[in-house]
Amino acid sequence: MATELEAKIDAAIARVQAAGEAIAPAAPQPVAASLVAAMIDHTLLKPDATTAAVQALCAVARANGFASVCVNATWVPLCVAELAESTVNVCTVAGFPLGATLPAVKAFEAKEAIALGAAEIDMVLNVGALKSGDVRLVWEDVAGVADECHDAGALLKVIIETGLLTHEEKIAACVICQDAGADFVKTATGFNGGGATPEDIALMRFVVGPEMGVKAAGGVRSAADALAVIAAGATRIGTSGGTGIMADLLGASASSAHTVDGY
Amino acid sequence: MATELEAKIDAAIARVQAAGEAIAPAAPQPVAASLVAAMIDHTLLKPDATTAAVQALCAVARANGFASVCVNATWVPLCVAELAESTVNVCTVAGFPLGATLPAVKAFEAKEAIALGAAEIDMVLNVGALKSGDVRLVWEDVAGVADECHDAGALLKVIIETGLLTHEEKIAACVICQDAGADFVKTATGFNGGGATPEDIALMRFVVGPEMGVKAAGGVRSAADALAVIAAGATRIGTSGGTGIMADLLGASASSAHTVDGY
Repeated sequence: MATELEAKIDAAIARVQAAGEAIAPAAPQPVAASLVAAMIDHTLLKPDATTAAVQALCAVARANGFASVCVNATWVPLCVAELAESTVNVCTVAGFPLGATLPAVKAFEAKEAIALGAAEIDMVLNVGALKSGDVRLVWEDVAGVADECHDAGALLKVIIETGLLTHEEKIAACVICQDAGADFVKTATGFNGGGATPEDIALMRFVVGPEMGVKAAGGVRSAADALAVIAAGATRIGTSGGTGIMADLLGASASSAHTVDGY
Repeated sequence: MATELEAKIDAAIARVQAAGEAIAPAAPQPVAASLVAAMIDHTLLKPDATTAAVQALCAVARANGFASVCVNATWVPLCVAELAESTVNVCTVAGFPLGATLPAVKAFEAKEAIALGAAEIDMVLNVGALKSGDVRLVWEDVAGVADECHDAGALLKVIIETGLLTHEEKIAACVICQDAGADFVKTATGFNGGGATPEDIALMRFVVGPEMGVKAAGGVRSAADALAVIAAGATRIGTSGGTGIMADLLGASASSAHTVDGY
């Protein structure tokens, strides 16, 4: 399997090389505030988050029509209760933020969280295994969590942690995640340096093609940041700054700077 | 149970209050380099650590007679192989570094790692639950991992993440960990700010008494740092700077500054 996978990785690297400047991110365009909202994973992953903070997170996500709240697993039951009868999903993390636990542990963590009501799992790639050339372990790690998610109808996003990867490792990570059945590739945890640049989003979008999800996370704090990563190909945005982004977009709607269709 | 536990916490807070200045850390004393070495958990928890880096970590730990190598779980099998027929334990982490996953996941992670040969587990306390007043959840989380560890003859250290806690929360965390069966309380992950101060070590030692282990981790980088936390009551030191600490101590032995008994 590893050889076949390595061939796919090599082919993707060659495609990127051949495409050259064509991979550069597109210029930001106006996007309706409601469409941006529907892309936001409203995120609170601090270890010292409290019950009150998580409840406030859920209230904001519900009021704004965000895609999900993204919380540590200990908060899944609370979020499921807070978001009952809303359109907001509960998203949690697996192997987060280091990505260096055992494949069986990530799969178990996903399974347990889904059983409690999580609809989306953001797992972290085994970065050290990728850097050590063990593409088989990286693939199996993703595939194991993908199986747990898809058996239960949940979405899987895989954080490749762009800030720790070389250009070729970013490409390899996208190829492996797609081949192993992930639904999204995601830039960063926000805990290990680096973040979501339009250039990385454009690269990830090019490698995985138009069908797969691409989530921009890490440093997306303003409406301008959000529109830049959307233009580059992001279909989901992970941020703790969703409230400010919406205020920017809705405030700007009066002067029509960033939005269309009356938003 | 929560009420009984809260009473124990209140009693400990009162004892600390009554002791006042008596809890201040003692002045550092010379300690033999070999004794310091035997307290060191030689630590590499970066997400992008590679096979080669982990092998080097093991070689250094073996050469110096360190207590353990402390690595992410994905590296446990490699470390077990590298450290066969040595006195160096393999230590790994659970729920690391956020402490905010489910109790069942931390227990499963410990069980799987122990099955692969880990002899020590450093878990992270559920800090958010503690701050939300859910002492029962904090206790059950620790007790579940303690059971897995002790069933298999492994040691459990619990990281209370001092940098995120108030004075009273530090005391509460120590009481809960001890009551739930942990073998050590440990200061910090090194990932969430804060670290091992002699003042915190002295407080933790006072609260848990003389029998339990206290591990200083987070910012212990020099021989002076190591001797300061040992004087304050630490019996184990987690650091990525073990090589430098040993060089300091052994270099100093020629001038007898820090050591006794010829070390």
